[in-house]
Amino acid sequence: MKIGLAQLNIHVGNFKANTEKIISALHTAEAQGAELVVYSELSICGYPSRDFLEFDDYITKCKEAIIEIAAHTSQTAVLIGAPQRNPNPEGKDLFNSAWFLYQGRVQHITHKTLLPTYDVFDECRYFEANTTFELVEFKGKKLAITICEDIWNVGNDNPLYTTCPMDELVKLKPDIMLNLSASPFSYQQHSERMNVIRANCLRYNLPMIYVNQVGAQTELIFDGGSVAVDQKGDIIKQLKFFEEEISIADTDVSHPPPVIHPPSPISLIHDALVLGIRDYFAKLGFKKAVLGLSGGIDSALVLCLAVEALGRDNVLSVLLPSAFSSGHSVEDSLQLVKNLGSPHEIISIEAPFQSYLDTLKPFFKELPFNVAEENLQARVRGTLLMAMSNKFGYILLNTTNKSEAAVGYGTLYGDMCGGLAVIGDVYKTQVYELSRYINRNAEVIPFNIITKAPSAELRPGQKDSDSLPDYDILDQVLYQYIEKRQGPKELVQMGFDKPLVDRILRMVNMNEWKRFQAPPILRVSPKAFGMGRRMPIEGKYLG
Amino acid sequence: MKIGLAQLNIHVGNFKANTEKIISALHTAEAQGAELVVYSELSICGYPSRDFLEFDDYITKCKEAIIEIAAHTSQTAVLIGAPQRNPNPEGKDLFNSAWFLYQGRVQHITHKTLLPTYDVFDECRYFEANTTFELVEFKGKKLAITICEDIWNVGNDNPLYTTCPMDELVKLKPDIMLNLSASPFSYQQHSERMNVIRANCLRYNLPMIYVNQVGAQTELIFDGGSVAVDQKGDIIKQLKFFEEEISIADTDVSHPPPVIHPPSPISLIHDALVLGIRDYFAKLGFKKAVLGLSGGIDSALVLCLAVEALGRDNVLSVLLPSAFSSGHSVEDSLQLVKNLGSPHEIISIEAPFQSYLDTLKPFFKELPFNVAEENLQARVRGTLLMAMSNKFGYILLNTTNKSEAAVGYGTLYGDMCGGLAVIGDVYKTQVYELSRYINRNAEVIPFNIITKAPSAELRPGQKDSDSLPDYDILDQVLYQYIEKRQGPKELVQMGFDKPLVDRILRMVNMNEWKRFQAPPILRVSPKAFGMGRRMPIEGKYLG
Repeated sequence: MKIGLAQLNIHVGNFKANTEKIISALHTAEAQGAELVVYSELSICGYPSRDFLEFDDYITKCKEAIIEIAAHTSQTAVLIGAPQRNPNPEGKDLFNSAWFLYQGRVQHITHKTLLPTYDVFDECRYFEANTTFELVEFKGKKLAITICEDIWNVGNDNPLYTTCPMDELVKLKPDIMLNLSASPFSYQQHSERMNVIRANCLRYNLPMIYVNQVGAQTELIFDGGSVAVDQKGDIIKQLKFFEEEISIADTDVSHPPPVIHPPSPISLIHDALVLGIRDYFAKLGFKKAVLGLSGGIDSALVLCLAVEALGRDNVLSVLLPSAFSSGHSVEDSLQLVKNLGSPHEIISIEAPFQSYLDTLKPFFKELPFNVAEENLQARVRGTLLMAMSNKFGYILLNTTNKSEAAVGYGTLYGDMCGGLAVIGDVYKTQVYELSRYINRNAEVIPFNIITKAPSAELRPGQKDSDSLPDYDILDQVLYQYIEKRQGPKELVQMGFDKPLVDRILRMVNMNEWKRFQAPPILRVSPKAFGMGRRMPIEGKYLG
Repeated sequence: MKIGLAQLNIHVGNFKANTEKIISALHTAEAQGAELVVYSELSICGYPSRDFLEFDDYITKCKEAIIEIAAHTSQTAVLIGAPQRNPNPEGKDLFNSAWFLYQGRVQHITHKTLLPTYDVFDECRYFEANTTFELVEFKGKKLAITICEDIWNVGNDNPLYTTCPMDELVKLKPDIMLNLSASPFSYQQHSERMNVIRANCLRYNLPMIYVNQVGAQTELIFDGGSVAVDQKGDIIKQLKFFEEEISIADTDVSHPPPVIHPPSPISLIHDALVLGIRDYFAKLGFKKAVLGLSGGIDSALVLCLAVEALGRDNVLSVLLPSAFSSGHSVEDSLQLVKNLGSPHEIISIEAPFQSYLDTLKPFFKELPFNVAEENLQARVRGTLLMAMSNKFGYILLNTTNKSEAAVGYGTLYGDMCGGLAVIGDVYKTQVYELSRYINRNAEVIPFNIITKAPSAELRPGQKDSDSLPDYDILDQVLYQYIEKRQGPKELVQMGFDKPLVDRILRMVNMNEWKRFQAPPILRVSPKAFGMGRRMPIEGKYLG
């Protein structure tokens, strides 16, 4: 059977644009001979729609879109994700469903069985789980339809679940497996996903059409990479990563497997961040970004990513030197914007900073310079950047990295300002890796920015290493605590120094209040700060 | 049986303090003749512990605390809430359990059956549901133990659930129902809760001991109000609201029902907010607050609440007048702090504001005064307040009300600064009600503050009504949209003007990005901005 894989960038709640895009993809696939076109999970409304799903009007709009799309299925069938109201008197109001449309009508509805409710997923908040299993017959083939998580308990090896939907469906002797997914990117997700798809094909001796959503939805970046895989587990069609694509796979023809070069993890992170920026702006209806360029590596990297996402003319760098800025900071920043060919301004923070000091002098009296004055400088910068943002309609990009965000090394309402935290899920050590990747063909980020010792430059001669452990060690401890949920005992058993472990975990836990007010962070790891990590602010644990 | 109700203020993750408090309450109740002491849900670690529950070390610490407490149960039994590891190979890692401790040992563990996963609740994220039902026998009585939500499907009338735990337990012929709760306050929760408890007593013809957590955990305020109710549904013991209490109820003696005067909703909201402030500071280890006093009603109300919570000497008001402040603003503010006897400072924003305008002039050129300059003033105020906070160790209180938060009428990093949004779940019309309640005995808030037209005072002669609908109408539409999840069609059917409805809903949806970075908001309604309302930022629905 000739099946179209429609890997589309869906805009949450934008029913008009989504429906047009879906119908256009149907006609494109039809023109290429598709008999059936498969779309991603909940692609009528976009994933995740979150609490929009609690509005009756929202569910009605989904149904109206389905009826509109069904009218285009006289020749070619459509399998597409949308919520369905639960007709039973008990249980959650909705199912997360795959709608099979053909000859103008809804022919069959399949509900999702396994509802992820962990990390960034809240599906038990909205959906009732499926408990019955049927195939769909179409043109002489029996189709086993599953939705995302449904294939992630292959052979019942996932301890979270007691059901394996494909184990049930295979008893009905299907010919093809079809999976509709909205599987967000993390740097380890790509290889895990392919392992799961292959394991399903081999276990059931069936081909699978796997269609994933593409595009970013604020924090979550969907990487696409949809595939058709044959019953031997060989890829017969690989769709692009981080781009829309409509492509046809013929499950009846045996293909020589194409040569696939799996992209490197660092290139995937890079591409994910670029898409994350691009979609945040596009979906909010903005074109231009502003950011503060400090001369350090974090803002240099964010500038390069933003220029790739939005175009060199659309990213304004503002240099905001102070008395504590090193001479190199301005020179290095100027070299970087010159390399990129992007616009910049220089705004000194001295006058407003001094004005604050004068205004506050009667209250601060002779108290020594401390964190209050350090934060003041950061807040003057934040305020100047926001003034440019408000006056000219830029979105301010935040340049905090994950290591800083973790330990609270940043000023709320200062360098923590911004509409989007581009590298807030990228540890400092990964910031260096990404910067070297940016420079893979030429020195875009000046070498001096990469090699200088990190500094916030908020007092004379300040270095990050004055108050933080070395990033090499810090990032390892943070990774084990945040991504791997290892506690103090386990960390000491791994060989980390106990006082250091206690100090780092204490810093992480004591700064939940600060992260609560941070901008949304583009998620590229299996555990990012944001919607997938929900911590008490006042909790006293390890704090 | 003489049963102690231990209504305690638990600090999430503070195992040492919690365990000491629990043991002390046990001895207090024992001294009053208690044979069994009942505590609230998950009181070993505090509710909600959120993702701390994913740390193995955290669960181990819970178990260690249980062993320590059990050692004190040679005379008097304890029924207390704590997580238990799920011993089964499949399902979530934990149960939400009630531990029955007696004679130094764990005698029985009961698991929660109904796991709320909506609004502020995420229990399916962490816990596996119970499916088996047993009573606990103690001193000749058979105890039916349930946890919080378990009693909220009385007679299977709750459409969310397919099981009614008490319907199962009653088949085993219990003598007494015991419920361990962590039921957060909202202004309608108190009466609903009593209806549910009474309905259980009447349906099963059994008495119930209901022990609720007290104390605030950042956004959530637990109001206590634990009760013992007899089989006729009459209250035989009513514990205090918003305070710790240890009290004994004898289920074998028939009491004349005490005369209960249910508190008014507005007094409950008032008391909830005071406790919310007090616990936020106490649990973070802070004593002193600062806030900007504008001369408007919102900051006046927050000041009064903070003075009640922290003491008059611990709340510094800062008046931050500008050229656009009306003469009344300063006079009214001075009268208020005089009435309260609390300290104040006056810091003019003119010099830093002018310094920003001068610094930005080469970039803004001759562009007209607009939102950029308005926001600058708000950000100068935010920066000055944060400077005072940083220099002297105050927490800044945010004074945004729910109506403003809803429509995005506020400046991010300006008046949206603060560690805690005290009235962020209180509509403007409720702000007036609360202010009149504050003045119920004497004019604390000057009459002029209550009667003047609301204004942000960011440009000459500005009034809220220039850009917002009248608060009477606005609040009704917001309430239907936010609390009742009514969509545009339903609102128009209720008689609201369609263009107005469209405009208001659009403002709410377009400002998710701003609320994302707002401080935590004390929740006093059934649907507050914050952890219980999860909306896409880039969503295009109604936006």
